[in-house]
Amino acid sequence: MTGPIDFYFDFISPYGYLASTQIEKIAAKHGRNVEWHPFLLGVTVMNVMGLKPIMETPLKSDYALIDRPRMAKLFGVPLVIPDLDGVNSLAASRAYYWIRQSDPVLAKEFAKRVFHRLWVDGKDITDVDAVIVEAAAVGIDGDALRDGLRDARTKALLRDAVDQAVDRRVFGAPFFIVDDEPIWGIDRLWMLEHWLAHASWDLA
Amino acid sequence: MTGPIDFYFDFISPYGYLASTQIEKIAAKHGRNVEWHPFLLGVTVMNVMGLKPIMETPLKSDYALIDRPRMAKLFGVPLVIPDLDGVNSLAASRAYYWIRQSDPVLAKEFAKRVFHRLWVDGKDITDVDAVIVEAAAVGIDGDALRDGLRDARTKALLRDAVDQAVDRRVFGAPFFIVDDEPIWGIDRLWMLEHWLAHASWDLA
Repeated sequence: MTGPIDFYFDFISPYGYLASTQIEKIAAKHGRNVEWHPFLLGVTVMNVMGLKPIMETPLKSDYALIDRPRMAKLFGVPLVIPDLDGVNSLAASRAYYWIRQSDPVLAKEFAKRVFHRLWVDGKDITDVDAVIVEAAAVGIDGDALRDGLRDARTKALLRDAVDQAVDRRVFGAPFFIVDDEPIWGIDRLWMLEHWLAHASWDLA
Repeated sequence: MTGPIDFYFDFISPYGYLASTQIEKIAAKHGRNVEWHPFLLGVTVMNVMGLKPIMETPLKSDYALIDRPRMAKLFGVPLVIPDLDGVNSLAASRAYYWIRQSDPVLAKEFAKRVFHRLWVDGKDITDVDAVIVEAAAVGIDGDALRDGLRDARTKALLRDAVDQAVDRRVFGAPFFIVDDEPIWGIDRLWMLEHWLAHASWDLA
């Protein structure tokens, strides 16, 4: 099979960031492309699923604090946990879809920079100005993007993307769909690799 | 390091069952023992964490239906999803701790039978009679167990076990703790194996 891997994430998810450092390597090894789909965990987890964010969930929040740094070690990539309140990925996600309309490859480069800004540099990504800085770094015109972010059509692009993610039963981040198989979690890259290698769940 | 692997599960969790088919093999490979700790997911998830059961959580419940059979395939073990309402592991868990007082090895054999009854034979484990059938099959005296289950001290054994699990920040099933490292989920056996092999999260 040769279809793409759909990669769903929210920029505010550290596990989404960790997945972003691995997924292209994994896909390339198996001759697949990756389509990146930022969505809003807040909408999915709180509104659709009726759950609390992980960091407000007893026990699980303790686990997350222990788990993030060791998971980064396992992948051999840097990770800082930024000391920021209320980080919001709305502008960054809208910017992603606005860029993607004209250049999907550039949109991915932009997404990598946003992840890097938040999870490696520990800097906020909430403000439009921050988003524009990262877009400019990959060659996007800042004024055009600023106008684009004000455009109702750009807001609709993200809204549609979030709706499509829910329609495809995506929850949590990272979430992968390949050949109609949904695979949730940074801890399941081995499953994704198994599928890419065998196109089956039978024992290898 | 040589300490045991603490294995936390609820008999009503299919992922707990799947883990039970793998954990002794994994531990033996690395010269570790496994201590089995049934606990009550309902208490942890609903009372302590304030969450809904997976099968009542939108999106996640759809995923679970797809995920269970493929996970069983990946481990090469049988799994049926029983068509039962309101399965409850209270009696089985109490019986486990009652047996364990005098014979930890037998308690594990009993636990395996309970898992098998529910997730391979698809039969209920809720009633005391069902629990006694499985206990008898490993040589436990049924009348003694029936008396034991009525004893307030037996109820206290389970209550203490659940409290201890919460104290150790255990949530979800399966959950492993080894050398103070908490590892949650059937999808993380690879992480458990990594730790057992390297006693470190650094890249191998």
